[in-house]
Parts: sequence; structure tokens; C-alpha cells
Amino acid sequence: MPRPTTETRREQIVDALLKQIAHAGYAGATIQSIAATAGINPGLIHYHFKDKRGILVAAVATLTAYAQARYERRAEAAKTPGARLRAYIDARLAYGDDARTDAVAAWVMIGAEAVRDADVRAVYGQAVDAELRQVRALLRARLAHAGKRTRGAARLAAALLAYVEGVFSLASAARDLVPKGFAADMAQELIERYVAAEPDAR
Amino acid sequence: MPRPTTETRREQIVDALLKQIAHAGYAGATIQSIAATAGINPGLIHYHFKDKRGILVAAVATLTAYAQARYERRAEAAKTPGARLRAYIDARLAYGDDARTDAVAAWVMIGAEAVRDADVRAVYGQAVDAELRQVRALLRARLAHAGKRTRGAARLAAALLAYVEGVFSLASAARDLVPKGFAADMAQELIERYVAAEPDAR
Repeated sequence: MPRPTTETRREQIVDALLKQIAHAGYAGATIQSIAATAGINPGLIHYHFKDKRGILVAAVATLTAYAQARYERRAEAAKTPGARLRAYIDARLAYGDDARTDAVAAWVMIGAEAVRDADVRAVYGQAVDAELRQVRALLRARLAHAGKRTRGAARLAAALLAYVEGVFSLASAARDLVPKGFAADMAQELIERYVAAEPDAR
Repeated sequence: MPRPTTETRREQIVDALLKQIAHAGYAGATIQSIAATAGINPGLIHYHFKDKRGILVAAVATLTAYAQARYERRAEAAKTPGARLRAYIDARLAYGDDARTDAVAAWVMIGAEAVRDADVRAVYGQAVDAELRQVRALLRARLAHAGKRTRGAARLAAALLAYVEGVFSLASAARDLVPKGFAADMAQELIERYVAAEPDAR
């Protein structure tokens, strides 16, 4: 059997950290417990990562790369700012063959860990910041394409991001209580009606 | 010094559990650690609560009662369904003298604990369910008052609740990244524009 590649090893370790966070929280995870979960020697973790925070950074990078890939697959065929925005909303909120509820649950728990742990907060904050920039650009393009003023784009981006985070929380913790498949369509409707009612650009 | 009342004792114990959840998560909290945090004898906890789950139920009840009181203070003067909806949005999302960031952070962490712990999920789910019913009624009244069809109220309620939960997450974990004070005004704008574009009732 060939030795696992560096890439595979790192993925194993990242998966083990996410499982540990789900089970006992970030603070409770140790290199020992991550190694035990991954079924590998702790020395191997130190070979691939400087410390626990390094694994967390990789975990957040993995989750955001996965979300970004979902978006890019859907955005490829999009010809207008409206279609690109729709692609983004579907990538984040619609189910599909590539939906991963475990990734969503991991993200919710990283967000909660960010409340209590400054290390996690810094890493999570960078991901949120990058996401906000992307959403802002998508919304600004959508507004401009409709001939509307764009100065509300930053607030609208924060609102959409809050909505996405909240849908993730409810989907993970109270799935049966919310109407099935409401999230993407409602986001689309709320934003399109908001855009339609914005004053024209001068 | 008079002995603390039952009410005061229960509040002390509930506060101690919330601190433990913030520090080590629900799974990590024990009657012993809650007692140590509250600075009381573990026997006293058993006197006031059947078990840890009983304290959690009381904690969620405390947080929802506090949120409900905020709403009722603002709704008192409201004369129309639109004003009552605005009172709800402000109670949940606007800052004010009675805003408690610790309560918001505790709620975010209970939501995340609900992802990994079935006990917490059941208690959290009941609170979410009650909240959804209230929001649905407020939105249905708002739509009807505007002469609009009301059948979208359930999906709109789920959207508003997701938005509120997401704002709580971002406010707790990434406060500096979102525009200051955007949350209540954006919710109001998004919903009013949504309502305005709904078809009339027949």
C-alpha cells in the first residue's frame, strides 16, 4: 500500500480536528486527542502542522474552499450580475448533490467557538471578512446593473451574510422546524425586491 | 444577612451554567463545576434542580423571557401590525439600554451546543418553535393589514428568524466586520419591501 500523500494526511488531521470540535470543542481538543481520532501518531501531526491553531486555519481554509468551489461551479454559466448573485445564493443555501451537512455543522461550531476563543475568532474573522468582500462586490454589481444606487451594498452584504449564517444554525440545530427548502428562494426574493425598490443611481 | 430567595439561588445556578457553557461547553459542565462556579454547595443545586438538563431548561427560559420582555416594552405603544413588527425587530436587533451582549453570546453558544447534543437540541428546538409561531403571527398580521396575501408568512418568519440568529452570531464572533447598527434597519427595509411587492389578497 502506498504511503498517504501529504495532502491526504493533512485532510485526515483537519477532519479529526473538526470531529473533536464537534465532540468536545476547540479548547478541549489536544494534539493527542486529534491524533487518536485520526488514528495516527502525534508526531505525524507535528510534522504537518506547527500547532493546533495551524490545523484550525487549514480547517477553515478547507471549508471556505469547498464553499467557493460550489459557487464557481454554479457561476460558470452565469452571464449577468443577477445570475451570479443567484449562483452565490444557491451555492450557499440550496441543497444539491454537493451539499455537505457536516461542513455546515462544522462551520456553525467554529462560529460558536469564535465567541469564546480569541484564536478561533481571529481565523473565523478573516474568513468572514473575505466572504463579506465577495458578497459586497456581487451586490454592488447587481445594483449597478439594475441602474440603482450602490451605496447600500455594504449593509445588504452584511444582511445576506447574517442570513446565511443563521440558516446554517437553524438547519443544523432545528432542521424540522423551518419550511423545507425555504432558504435560497427567500434570500433571492428578499434581495430582488430590495433592489427593485432602491432609488435609481444619478 | 438574609438567606437568598429560591429565585435568586436559581438565577445564580443558571448564570453558572451559562458561564460553564461559554467556557467548556454543555457536555463538559458538571453539577460539581457549576457549583464551584456559583460558589455554592453541589447539594444546593440538587435541591433546586433535578439535573443539569433542568438548569439548561431554566437558562433557555430565562433568555427567552428576557427577550420577550424587551419586545413587550416596545410593543406597548404600538397601534398597528407594522408598529408591532417594528417593535419585535428592534427588541431583537437594535441596541438599547436594555441590550445584553452576554445574553446574545449565551444564545449563540446554546445554538451551537444544540448541533452536537440531543438534550440541548430538544430544549433549543422548543424555544425556536415558540419564536417562529410568534414571528409568523406578527408577519401574517402585517401582510393582512396591507391587504396582501398571507400564505408566505411561514417562509418569511423562518427567514427573519434565521436573520436574527445570524446577526447574533456575527455580532458575537465578528463584531467589527459588519456595519455598525445595520441589523434592525436592514431587517425592517427587507421585510417592508418584501411586503410591498407581495400580491394583494383576493
